[in-house]
Amino acid sequence: MAAARTPDQVMAFPLSRRLFAEFAGTGFLVATVVGSGIMAQSLTDDTALALLGNTIPTGAILYVLITLFGPVSGAHFNPAVSLVMAIDKRLSWRDILPYVIAQILGGLAGTFIAHMMFALDVVQFSSHARTGMAQWFAEIIASFGLAVTIFFGVRFREQSVAMLVGLYITAAYWFTASTSFANPAVTVARAFTDTFSGIRPVDAPMFILMQLLGAALGLLAFRWVMKPADGQRESQS
Amino acid sequence: MAAARTPDQVMAFPLSRRLFAEFAGTGFLVATVVGSGIMAQSLTDDTALALLGNTIPTGAILYVLITLFGPVSGAHFNPAVSLVMAIDKRLSWRDILPYVIAQILGGLAGTFIAHMMFALDVVQFSSHARTGMAQWFAEIIASFGLAVTIFFGVRFREQSVAMLVGLYITAAYWFTASTSFANPAVTVARAFTDTFSGIRPVDAPMFILMQLLGAALGLLAFRWVMKPADGQRESQS
Amino acid sequence: MAAARTPDQVMAFPLSRRLFAEFAGTGFLVATVVGSGIMAQSLTDDTALALLGNTIPTGAILYVLITLFGPVSGAHFNPAVSLVMAIDKRLSWRDILPYVIAQILGGLAGTFIAHMMFALDVVQFSSHARTGMAQWFAEIIASFGLAVTIFFGVRFREQSVAMLVGLYITAAYWFTASTSFANPAVTVARAFTDTFSGIRPVDAPMFILMQLLGAALGLLAFRWVMKPADGQRESQS
Amino acid sequence: MAAARTPDQVMAFPLSRRLFAEFAGTGFLVATVVGSGIMAQSLTDDTALALLGNTIPTGAILYVLITLFGPVSGAHFNPAVSLVMAIDKRLSWRDILPYVIAQILGGLAGTFIAHMMFALDVVQFSSHARTGMAQWFAEIIASFGLAVTIFFGVRFREQSVAMLVGLYITAAYWFTASTSFANPAVTVARAFTDTFSGIRPVDAPMFILMQLLGAALGLLAFRWVMKPADGQRESQS
Repeated sequence: MAAARTPDQVMAFPLSRRLFAEFAGTGFLVATVVGSGIMAQSLTDDTALALLGNTIPTGAILYVLITLFGPVSGAHFNPAVSLVMAIDKRLSWRDILPYVIAQILGGLAGTFIAHMMFALDVVQFSSHARTGMAQWFAEIIASFGLAVTIFFGVRFREQSVAMLVGLYITAAYWFTASTSFANPAVTVARAFTDTFSGIRPVDAPMFILMQLLGAALGLLAFRWVMKPADGQRESQS
Repeated sequence: MAAARTPDQVMAFPLSRRLFAEFAGTGFLVATVVGSGIMAQSLTDDTALALLGNTIPTGAILYVLITLFGPVSGAHFNPAVSLVMAIDKRLSWRDILPYVIAQILGGLAGTFIAHMMFALDVVQFSSHARTGMAQWFAEIIASFGLAVTIFFGVRFREQSVAMLVGLYITAAYWFTASTSFANPAVTVARAFTDTFSGIRPVDAPMFILMQLLGAALGLLAFRWVMKPADGQRESQS
Repeated sequence: MAAARTPDQVMAFPLSRRLFAEFAGTGFLVATVVGSGIMAQSLTDDTALALLGNTIPTGAILYVLITLFGPVSGAHFNPAVSLVMAIDKRLSWRDILPYVIAQILGGLAGTFIAHMMFALDVVQFSSHARTGMAQWFAEIIASFGLAVTIFFGVRFREQSVAMLVGLYITAAYWFTASTSFANPAVTVARAFTDTFSGIRPVDAPMFILMQLLGAALGLLAFRWVMKPADGQRESQS
Repeated sequence: MAAARTPDQVMAFPLSRRLFAEFAGTGFLVATVVGSGIMAQSLTDDTALALLGNTIPTGAILYVLITLFGPVSGAHFNPAVSLVMAIDKRLSWRDILPYVIAQILGGLAGTFIAHMMFALDVVQFSSHARTGMAQWFAEIIASFGLAVTIFFGVRFREQSVAMLVGLYITAAYWFTASTSFANPAVTVARAFTDTFSGIRPVDAPMFILMQLLGAALGLLAFRWVMKPADGQRESQS
């Protein structure tokens, strides 16, 4: 979910390998979100415990995937992140569409693989309603926070971005009413599972809109804090 | 909660940006404390599990927020920390009042945002009694430990202060009878929520007094350990 | 589970010490997997909680053991890892057989020690059925992910391999239907315990076959991503 | 629990400050063990959940305390560790007795402070039986592992010793039948609390004996692995 390289460095890998990294990373991320949700729900009747069994694996795998694939593709795994990265000139505009397609296909593959591992119908549609002003507001906050985490993290402690994103999502699963989807590709993928982590297809578009809005606001906040003050240049290197 | 910069370096950011960092950081911290408490309480009847669902997000977001905003404002998010930082000449005295105001306003915003995300009344007053000698003593211990963590952490392992504070609070939620508020701004903010993490407004002042006392004792302990021994200079760099 | 040294550096330790490291490391790993499973199962009726009590210790001890023994033996603790390391020329072929024997004996010792600590029959055979297409597919995915984690981790962030493997397994315990054995030596050892973490001896061979297949696929994926592009050399150092 | 400094560097702090660090560190450690046990037991009937609420704070505070006080006193907090450190010439023999006294007094203070925070009788005696061959064997294994963790950790990754010990104990709470006391000062302190983490005074001496034995065996294992091979010098620096 975080670009830990400038565009030039990322370019060292051909686009095909970078798209593979985005595909595989988003796939493993969604397989973890969906799979751990299935596992947790099958083992307990306590929903808080199920959410914990969903949270800990998700936070853990984010640290792993961003560390592994960050040097290859930037490890966005998230169209909202790719978009604000492009706006901030950290990703080439001509790479946006292939990145987003790879992320969405990877996310779908992750859902299907999770279903196959648990011997469920491969293609499903969620019946889990997630809608309303409060949930939409929660997605704005969740995505704003994610973008702030990534931009300040890359700026001040690039080698810790994987840990930052993993722990941010760990927190956001619990402090947002929507359990913090914060990712359009993951939202699409979660529409295709009628298990713990699903979202009704009809509810997905508004979630995605809120995610894009939140991420854009996060970029604005970052830019305002970092812009040179009047008559002085910021001195941090 | 920890200044990872000397006053001069912090000064590189104009006061407005530093106050924004204190406001946003305290806001996200309180939104996490209050929001995860609401989420946890709504999902389980087991109070230990609810506390775990409150603890893990709080520890995680502290690591994130201190890492992100430490280079901007010092990432205090806590009037007791700002105060002992000023006493120790790590924060300018003229910045104390704006810092504390930003922290309190940020904390209130965090509570209100959490309520909005969970579709609850935005302004509430807690009915959760937290009072008595044992609780007050617990707040002294909790805040003493926090100050010790910050001062020794900054001195010996500055790049780990975010992890230190996150894990200290993770522990303190469980080993203190008060679940370790240890922060006057967060205490004020938690008086305005009648949910899992609330505190009756009438109980807040004594908590805050104990927090200031504990933090001051922590500074004294740090100074005594670090002061040059008779006839010799401490040789650590 | 990860070689953090090139063969030459590992050679600095005589084979006997390296085999001791593989034996002791696999032993502590299995003692943790089996022992924490026994502890968890004895304390709760909630299977999700038992799995959490099995997951957290396993992830934690992997970080510890790989950090401690990586410099001595490479800290594979896993015949599938040793095999793909040999294929990738990171382990001498003549060391494969002694490594695998040390790992299997260490794993058995770990099971027996766990039984002794909990006052159970030292030698047992599991009656826990783990079989079928879905479980086998899950073991391929789990082992593929583990190999990808190790190879990219060693390549891009060698000093974080212990944390990467610990957190990968933390996630994989939950997102795979098989709870991610992903290790032939551990699979053999778990066939000898009729407790939470056991696997019927008759089910072990297919698990092991899937693990070897998954690890080999992981190596292939790594090599494809990292191979020089046509007409250009990869520029990362 | 780990000396992260050579004796000479530790000497930079006068003995009084080092003893304060051992006293305060052992005190906070025991306050966490005992306090979180009281908290957990009061909030849930599920013993596995109570152990989790005991484990996570203990692992977290160990990371904090060893990081904070390692540079001052070596952060042993444990007579068995101080003893093997002295045998390995990492602590002066004349400091052993004062260290052990500071650790025991600190541990007692920790128990009493935990009781005061939770409004319980300050001095209690445990009625929790922990005895028998299996438990004693478990303490040998637990202390052996702790010593191995400290010695190899200091040797290969000194800056990670705090994380290593924290995560080792996190695992050992679950994989040993005794929940891994592994510390004579903590064992004495836990005899004085009739709560979750207590141990009957009559059972303490055998636990302590096993702990000393396990730590000594850990030192022997470390020395055998690290000793120069016949006719060659180990080449790691």
